Amino acid sequence: MKDAKLVAKSQSNQNTIVHLSDQVAIGGQKIVMIGGPCTVESLTQMETVARHLQFAPVQALRGGVYKPRTSPYAFQGMGIEGLEILATVSRRYNMPVVTEVMAIAQIEEIAAYADMLQIGSRNMQNFDLLKAVGQANKPVLLKRGLAATIEEFVMAAEYIVSHGNPNVVLCERGIRSFDSYTRNVLDLGAVVALKQITHLPVIVDPSHAAGKRELIADLSRGAIACGADGLIIECHPHPEQSVSDARQALTLDDMVRLAESVKPVAEAIGRQVYESARSQLAIA
Amino acid sequence: MKDAKLVAKSQSNQNTIVHLSDQVAIGGQKIVMIGGPCTVESLTQMETVARHLQFAPVQALRGGVYKPRTSPYAFQGMGIEGLEILATVSRRYNMPVVTEVMAIAQIEEIAAYADMLQIGSRNMQNFDLLKAVGQANKPVLLKRGLAATIEEFVMAAEYIVSHGNPNVVLCERGIRSFDSYTRNVLDLGAVVALKQITHLPVIVDPSHAAGKRELIADLSRGAIACGADGLIIECHPHPEQSVSDARQALTLDDMVRLAESVKPVAEAIGRQVYESARSQLAIA
Amino acid sequence: MKDAKLVAKSQSNQNTIVHLSDQVAIGGQKIVMIGGPCTVESLTQMETVARHLQFAPVQALRGGVYKPRTSPYAFQGMGIEGLEILATVSRRYNMPVVTEVMAIAQIEEIAAYADMLQIGSRNMQNFDLLKAVGQANKPVLLKRGLAATIEEFVMAAEYIVSHGNPNVVLCERGIRSFDSYTRNVLDLGAVVALKQITHLPVIVDPSHAAGKRELIADLSRGAIACGADGLIIECHPHPEQSVSDARQALTLDDMVRLAESVKPVAEAIGRQVYESARSQLAIA
Amino acid sequence: MKDAKLVAKSQSNQNTIVHLSDQVAIGGQKIVMIGGPCTVESLTQMETVARHLQFAPVQALRGGVYKPRTSPYAFQGMGIEGLEILATVSRRYNMPVVTEVMAIAQIEEIAAYADMLQIGSRNMQNFDLLKAVGQANKPVLLKRGLAATIEEFVMAAEYIVSHGNPNVVLCERGIRSFDSYTRNVLDLGAVVALKQITHLPVIVDPSHAAGKRELIADLSRGAIACGADGLIIECHPHPEQSVSDARQALTLDDMVRLAESVKPVAEAIGRQVYESARSQLAIA
Repeated sequence: MKDAKLVAKSQSNQNTIVHLSDQVAIGGQKIVMIGGPCTVESLTQMETVARHLQFAPVQALRGGVYKPRTSPYAFQGMGIEGLEILATVSRRYNMPVVTEVMAIAQIEEIAAYADMLQIGSRNMQNFDLLKAVGQANKPVLLKRGLAATIEEFVMAAEYIVSHGNPNVVLCERGIRSFDSYTRNVLDLGAVVALKQITHLPVIVDPSHAAGKRELIADLSRGAIACGADGLIIECHPHPEQSVSDARQALTLDDMVRLAESVKPVAEAIGRQVYESARSQLAIA
Repeated sequence: MKDAKLVAKSQSNQNTIVHLSDQVAIGGQKIVMIGGPCTVESLTQMETVARHLQFAPVQALRGGVYKPRTSPYAFQGMGIEGLEILATVSRRYNMPVVTEVMAIAQIEEIAAYADMLQIGSRNMQNFDLLKAVGQANKPVLLKRGLAATIEEFVMAAEYIVSHGNPNVVLCERGIRSFDSYTRNVLDLGAVVALKQITHLPVIVDPSHAAGKRELIADLSRGAIACGADGLIIECHPHPEQSVSDARQALTLDDMVRLAESVKPVAEAIGRQVYESARSQLAIA
Repeated sequence: MKDAKLVAKSQSNQNTIVHLSDQVAIGGQKIVMIGGPCTVESLTQMETVARHLQFAPVQALRGGVYKPRTSPYAFQGMGIEGLEILATVSRRYNMPVVTEVMAIAQIEEIAAYADMLQIGSRNMQNFDLLKAVGQANKPVLLKRGLAATIEEFVMAAEYIVSHGNPNVVLCERGIRSFDSYTRNVLDLGAVVALKQITHLPVIVDPSHAAGKRELIADLSRGAIACGADGLIIECHPHPEQSVSDARQALTLDDMVRLAESVKPVAEAIGRQVYESARSQLAIA
Repeated sequence: MKDAKLVAKSQSNQNTIVHLSDQVAIGGQKIVMIGGPCTVESLTQMETVARHLQFAPVQALRGGVYKPRTSPYAFQGMGIEGLEILATVSRRYNMPVVTEVMAIAQIEEIAAYADMLQIGSRNMQNFDLLKAVGQANKPVLLKRGLAATIEEFVMAAEYIVSHGNPNVVLCERGIRSFDSYTRNVLDLGAVVALKQITHLPVIVDPSHAAGKRELIADLSRGAIACGADGLIIECHPHPEQSVSDARQALTLDDMVRLAESVKPVAEAIGRQVYESARSQLAIA
């Protein structure tokens, strides 16, 4: 990584810790779990998700309101209305939210509602967008491009940090390959490499990598054992009714079970999981 | 291509022809050749290129003024000053120019100077940018993403056309693979497929695919024999001094030789090449 | 290609020319066309093919009698009976035949019937088989592995030549990629590179690359324009009834049309095609 | 996996357990660890390895005596002499050995010395070799091809089992991708999928996947957390002096540390590791 400066491991003697809220941070000793649907569909949907997950070791919520869709005729997201839903549920259940920003013009608006700005895979080298979130005052979740090299991924983070925002979390989400059994190939070797190359936190999205819900729990535990700092997983009150990515969404019960199963794996490598959002509220 | 509507072959009984100028169009019987450096570096550089190519069967110029670079510390392009150079040379030598637009905020500015807006590979699924150039009144050169499927490529074009701009030219420029001998793998099968699936013109960029100048001439002739509607090729007065992609730039003499060698191949499949820009000026 | 010795361009001031018969050679000025079914199914089938193609600019026949099949339950080929069919038809129509050898134990038998031994993609790095055909006295058609690098491909040829057999023809047949529209990605950049790196002939198999018959003619002309020394193409009297690879087989009429269309492309780059097998018989 | 019959999960209500010795089996509750050099170089080398690993939770040894090398000029292995070394060390330290068989002619010889026959990645679809080891009376370690789909991998196992040998262990060892930071991409999603599709044991080779020793320990723990039944890892008394794959070999001390670190991860998902070979000898 010849050009990596600010994000290089050699530039800092301690790992970056990115705070999502007073209670939740990514990159420290504790594993972070982020759950939620691919797409925000209604207040009822998001309430159901949060109510279910608040007692599990899941600390944050995900949900798209601006959606990158292959087809211009597919549902493009609820937009501002979805942001209001996210903010309402976030406050009510003490769970920070992350949602995708697709364009520079959306940054200010989304930053007013969300706790973390996601840059999606298709925009990993949308350099003007990277520069713009580099000037935002919210943490950024940077997803690896569909066929981005590890070096390109690191340098995309360098774009953001060099423009002023040090709070970047990298997210491995699977890369393209010749095999169609899984949607993408989850590259856990990249997770290990990134932890060695940079001081940034690295989390894993097994949902988009696997594309099939029955593969997700094992991959999640594998990711944590490899050293990932957290997981971001798609779940839905009624997966089969999800407006997008239905095949890979977990039921909420499965999501809770998965989150609980991560605990002993984290401990096996000397780390811990967070308490539930509900418990943390009590603490706070 | 289940969702392709406006760009699908079945939607039109004639192929789209995209006009770059009064004399030059892409998608008709004639093969279009676009040449120029990776990056606009100076007026002298662009003058030298145009002066050399105007007598060859090369009709249009390329040159980046906003450059997508892996590293934030690499030269990011001359910006507005580069646009002025492009416009000056374009007028003087009767050669339309194509240059990359990386952000929505640049569209209006670039459209005022250039004859065609290029969407680069890294932005092929930057959907907000696609929507925005879909509202511009300039033709768009859409390059295939580094690992975009043919379907995703077609649907990216559908984004632009469905937002109001029918003048889209597709550009195959190589896809990522496991082999590092060539920079990318030029996917001429995609060119053949795209010509069958859509009514849009398809051109080929062998420079970024090959990554090595000694491979470019043979690939160019192969692309034309496969049915491509044109070529966009990097050349430079002094390739070894190019600020970017030096290894793949042709000398201007090699560019001229290549352009001339395309003529018999085009004729072998029942097509023709354009006269030189100089000749066309005389005609006009 | 640091380890390539015997096959390296630098080792010889002239290109290798591999003779299939007294009249037909690969690697010289003339383009060779090889046609035939994926699998030899019956004498009638092969007779029909040869009778049809003998008047076209197609000089040699292909047809598998030992078939590498993904499933052990799929038809594994006619074996010795198929070899006898190939030999009969070859004599009768003055067309040399190429067929695949899958195991060392088959070499002697196949060499007694066929004019060229094919090493299939799945065996490109079956090094003991390479060494063994290196000791056979028949030319070898070496197909590129499904995901072999150019270097690995060249070194596989080096195995054969270094074991005593200089008559090796390389065959690009598509590599694996993320896109499923085409069966594989035909890597014509590799063809150009191989012609520069080695002195061996290079031919192209567009059938396995494309996987769809409607893509094959354009790719074939593209391959020749890129500098390939020949083509090997699947065709069948009744493609839809083919026991294997039915989707990519051309009808015999389409095969003839394709072969004829190659002629002007070859001439456009200063090469020629052979006369038909029938004409050559007259000459001989 | 439409054609998988004998190896399909649905064909058996219990998982296959493959015995390497009286004490060591793959596919049961216990995780198996296999260690050793890429290539058998001398008796001293193998003695040093076994002496060091016998007290660690490592139960079996690996070491190549017939080596598939890209270049015909690279060291091709010690052959029979290497087999004698393997057998001597195996007996002396109570550790079964696995070594690669590259050709049908080697099977009988290798089966006389080794406890498990490895089919290497380059031979995964060498169907005649698969059929032949299907008739051998030794367990087979089948490594995934460099670019084999999950379906092709399963069907390769089906070849072996359908020819009479039910004792097949699958080994994921990384697949080819566009990124060169790691040698290959370890596809742990395939491990999860294979455990669901088949009743065969699945182990992981992180050494060839990573290609860099510093990535191996984390990947190993990740593989176990994903549900792999064991690991096969390259280690060497003096990695930098290894005749092959030096960059990815662990020191023996690092190998021991890695093996010990797997224990809590195995327990976190309800499995165990074996005792050391030494302990098992005492038990036996």
